[in-house]
Amino acid sequence: MERPGRHFTAMRETAPLVQNITNFVAMNVMANVLLAIGASPAMIHARQEAAEFAGIAQALTVNIGTAEAEWYAAMEEAGQVMAETGKPWVLDPVGVGATGFRRERTARLVALKPTVIRGNASEILALAGLGAAGRGVDSGDSVETAQDAARTLAARTEGVVVVSGPRDFATDGSRSYHLGNGHPLMARVTAMGCSLNGVIAAFCVGQPGLEATVAALASYGLAGEVAAGQAAGPGSFVPAFLDALSDLDAAALDAGARIETA
Amino acid sequence: MERPGRHFTAMRETAPLVQNITNFVAMNVMANVLLAIGASPAMIHARQEAAEFAGIAQALTVNIGTAEAEWYAAMEEAGQVMAETGKPWVLDPVGVGATGFRRERTARLVALKPTVIRGNASEILALAGLGAAGRGVDSGDSVETAQDAARTLAARTEGVVVVSGPRDFATDGSRSYHLGNGHPLMARVTAMGCSLNGVIAAFCVGQPGLEATVAALASYGLAGEVAAGQAAGPGSFVPAFLDALSDLDAAALDAGARIETA
Amino acid sequence: MERPGRHFTAMRETAPLVQNITNFVAMNVMANVLLAIGASPAMIHARQEAAEFAGIAQALTVNIGTAEAEWYAAMEEAGQVMAETGKPWVLDPVGVGATGFRRERTARLVALKPTVIRGNASEILALAGLGAAGRGVDSGDSVETAQDAARTLAARTEGVVVVSGPRDFATDGSRSYHLGNGHPLMARVTAMGCSLNGVIAAFCVGQPGLEATVAALASYGLAGEVAAGQAAGPGSFVPAFLDALSDLDAAALDAGARIETA
Repeated sequence: MERPGRHFTAMRETAPLVQNITNFVAMNVMANVLLAIGASPAMIHARQEAAEFAGIAQALTVNIGTAEAEWYAAMEEAGQVMAETGKPWVLDPVGVGATGFRRERTARLVALKPTVIRGNASEILALAGLGAAGRGVDSGDSVETAQDAARTLAARTEGVVVVSGPRDFATDGSRSYHLGNGHPLMARVTAMGCSLNGVIAAFCVGQPGLEATVAALASYGLAGEVAAGQAAGPGSFVPAFLDALSDLDAAALDAGARIETA
Repeated sequence: MERPGRHFTAMRETAPLVQNITNFVAMNVMANVLLAIGASPAMIHARQEAAEFAGIAQALTVNIGTAEAEWYAAMEEAGQVMAETGKPWVLDPVGVGATGFRRERTARLVALKPTVIRGNASEILALAGLGAAGRGVDSGDSVETAQDAARTLAARTEGVVVVSGPRDFATDGSRSYHLGNGHPLMARVTAMGCSLNGVIAAFCVGQPGLEATVAALASYGLAGEVAAGQAAGPGSFVPAFLDALSDLDAAALDAGARIETA
Repeated sequence: MERPGRHFTAMRETAPLVQNITNFVAMNVMANVLLAIGASPAMIHARQEAAEFAGIAQALTVNIGTAEAEWYAAMEEAGQVMAETGKPWVLDPVGVGATGFRRERTARLVALKPTVIRGNASEILALAGLGAAGRGVDSGDSVETAQDAARTLAARTEGVVVVSGPRDFATDGSRSYHLGNGHPLMARVTAMGCSLNGVIAAFCVGQPGLEATVAALASYGLAGEVAAGQAAGPGSFVPAFLDALSDLDAAALDAGARIETA
């Protein structure tokens, strides 16, 4: 895919309002990531207002990391609004294979056909109904083993599916890409994947799903590379990463993105 | 207003115990901000204990950012304790114009007459019952457009109202100040406004409301200027800001505060 | 106690999956602390799945900082699983003396005999049924005044009790240690104690409780000393602390640990 920078520029010009129903661990970092990339985050999940706010938001992310029953209900109601109004929304099925409660409630979210589903290999395999080796919220499976499952899932949801890992994989069921950007430190900090959901959602506003998603993944990985070059470990990585996201521009993205057709 | 440093010194000597019923995004940063400024934070919101703890706390902050029904009830009950015992409490009506649920429940908190209400221009306009251009939790209105609404609201609550923005405005309905301290990076990090509520509450313990609030705003803005001088972006700003709050003293505040009668 | 480094090495090799039912303030930092030390954190507290996940987890921590009724129920059910399956779990009775709700619900957790209880002096005194001077979540009592209470509590729970403070005290009721590692900056940042619970739990997996706990305390304090040497204040301390935890190894721990029989 050529010139992902134009999708970056379009996102920055839109400065989209992104509603996030996410887990408690990620909320602060995710809001800061969205501010740094140039979007406007709103962390609004209360069932009494989530669907109403979805009517205002330009994009939505839902993440089941620490969800309880009322939160899943809010996710379904907000997701339904996005589906009906044709606005993009991203589902992150954190640790979906870990408990029966997660499996059952997440299946209802998948049935609403999210614009993008992003998970690690074990999560995508679990969603696709296949055996998975995940333990808790970490992946016990390689990205490669989940690529067919991702294609199948994307075809079923008529959306984009991303398998996160050392080398990300993104597909809409027919076209697929590998992403070479990123750094191992990104896996040693919590909420990096959760926060990425917001960036993907922001890029998807008014842009084609697969191209926007791939440009978001490249932006995120490239900022991770820049930050890793300045960090002494996982602690100093986080501030450096936010600085790098804030400094990113279309030219740097076009020069540094490593996107290959898969 | 002259010599805000004496209010800073009084706050540090009191080291007040500040109870905070705030949103999930802000909790960690807010607690660190209160520790850095020299107060003792307690994040206690469960309805089963919020009012009991308010009997112990020296000040209270309530913030509706991610509140659900039970949280609003805890805020009302704790706010009632503060009102009855004459202890200061601060209300932050985050995104109050965004949903009907927020408008209705926040009106009940305003009726309890908080010592200080702090919001952006759109939030203060919405609280005062006027049309507002806010989108989500960001302000679509300028500070100047909300000054009359702030004065009206302050007269109604017999308290202080702050309009946050590039240049803060604080009023008790008759006397008003403009604050010149601060830096644009402060708006590019989440929870900076929420955390400021705690600092205002800490300053208000045993001190006159408007003067304490203005001294808190100047302290916060000045620390932001110091931190911005050391930061490479929004990520490195946060640690530098906490360091600067911790390093602040009365002499630096007296020298650096930019407070003008409005 | 000699050569705490072997317990560090064992923990790193196990890379244990630690489930945490903790407070909202600590969740993000605690997950990052566990990742930095080399464990795998899972923040899973929903009552619908907490006990089921406890069957998978290798260790558990429970922290009452911001708990509501359903959270306490989840803690009890998950703690019961750990007790029945002989897996380690750590209880942190944050501010237990502050409200009747905390006292009553925490007593039920103590009755389940946690592997380790860690609190400040006021909290341990309150748990042991003695008067305590704590105000909110800070300790108003010295570590020394709580040592007898800690021994009594450890004998009652047949576990380990830690009194955190300038110089930590750890006991199993008969054998006791003082820990000399640490730095005053650690008390000026929120969630440092909460995050330590996770490190203790990780060390306890497959290792004797008192020795593992002491090695965890020494590791944590030593990383704090390293970080304080690089930090300009409480803000820059946190990233430096995570970097130092990540860099720690058995040799540095053996060389730097200050452990004395009490």
